[in-house]
Amino acid sequence: MSSSNLLDNLIEALQVMPGVGPVGATRIAYYLLDKKRPEGLKMAEVIKESLSHISLCPQCRNYTDSEGELCSICKSDKRRVSGSICVVETPTDVEAIESSSSYSGSYFVLHGHMSAIEHITVEDLGLDVLAKRLDSENVEELIIAVGQTPEGDVTASYIAAMAKKRGIKVSKIATGVPLGGDLGSVDGNTLAMSFNYRRSM
Amino acid sequence: MSSSNLLDNLIEALQVMPGVGPVGATRIAYYLLDKKRPEGLKMAEVIKESLSHISLCPQCRNYTDSEGELCSICKSDKRRVSGSICVVETPTDVEAIESSSSYSGSYFVLHGHMSAIEHITVEDLGLDVLAKRLDSENVEELIIAVGQTPEGDVTASYIAAMAKKRGIKVSKIATGVPLGGDLGSVDGNTLAMSFNYRRSM
Repeated sequence: MSSSNLLDNLIEALQVMPGVGPVGATRIAYYLLDKKRPEGLKMAEVIKESLSHISLCPQCRNYTDSEGELCSICKSDKRRVSGSICVVETPTDVEAIESSSSYSGSYFVLHGHMSAIEHITVEDLGLDVLAKRLDSENVEELIIAVGQTPEGDVTASYIAAMAKKRGIKVSKIATGVPLGGDLGSVDGNTLAMSFNYRRSM
Repeated sequence: MSSSNLLDNLIEALQVMPGVGPVGATRIAYYLLDKKRPEGLKMAEVIKESLSHISLCPQCRNYTDSEGELCSICKSDKRRVSGSICVVETPTDVEAIESSSSYSGSYFVLHGHMSAIEHITVEDLGLDVLAKRLDSENVEELIIAVGQTPEGDVTASYIAAMAKKRGIKVSKIATGVPLGGDLGSVDGNTLAMSFNYRRSM
């Protein structure tokens, strides 16, 4: 309890952010009050505008500014004719792949993975939208780039079955030791996988 | 650069908070968008309200909700008749002292310390307000509880001179080894001070 109710409210409200607890929220609140009032007000305005207007691209479910319209990647003709869709869990994954320049097809963002515990179902992941795309677009290959976790694997198997049923080629990005990776700092399961999937040279 | 300009703006705006860089801001942005849109909008509203309305108590310069009015501590008769003012650097210091129940007088919050490098002057610290209080209130003791840094020491000396000129008793909170403190984990200067200021027993 501080000298100001508004300050207590502010400290409480800031804790909605991930990784921000009471101590961090107090630090942020005092910093904004003491040194960055105009910038903090600007931030509040931007948060309000973004959270109100950012929506999902109806085709790939990545974030986009214009509600109901395709995102810039889905709009691109070059992407569309590539004939491949890369399935990822989060918009951050799209950014990571884009910045690696390793892929030039279109995407499909699940915003999660199937999970009985978290009650995340096929509908939550928008797989009906993906099914429609597989039916209507000329898809040659579906590349699955979801996390290598038990839930990710279940999700990957389900999506792979969807594609195979339609005679579409399915692949999964490779698992192994990262470039520059020190074998000692890689976990045992990854190392075991990198032996199983070894390439002849 | 993500697929959404609003998202880029959001990630940029969040970085006004201390300790939040591009990676942290991205994480917060996606978390709010994915899972906490209503709570995030609420947070924006609270930030706006607090930063617009929290002001300084005209007497002690601590944060207060009602502009122009005294804060709850300054309003209290019991605090006023105590005859002592404790000078601290930040509102957090007031909270820390209040929760330790070690003091029952009134406060004066500097919101910083004198610093030629940071261009913080006597006016920024509200020392004209403090001077008026020393002149008009029946102050018996001024307790200085600012940080034991070079800048804090300069500030403390200046304020001590202000009080002494008016014949008011000035004291400074004790420096030493914290309770439960392991001598090995206390810095050498503090240890030296704790020897200098040793008490006979």
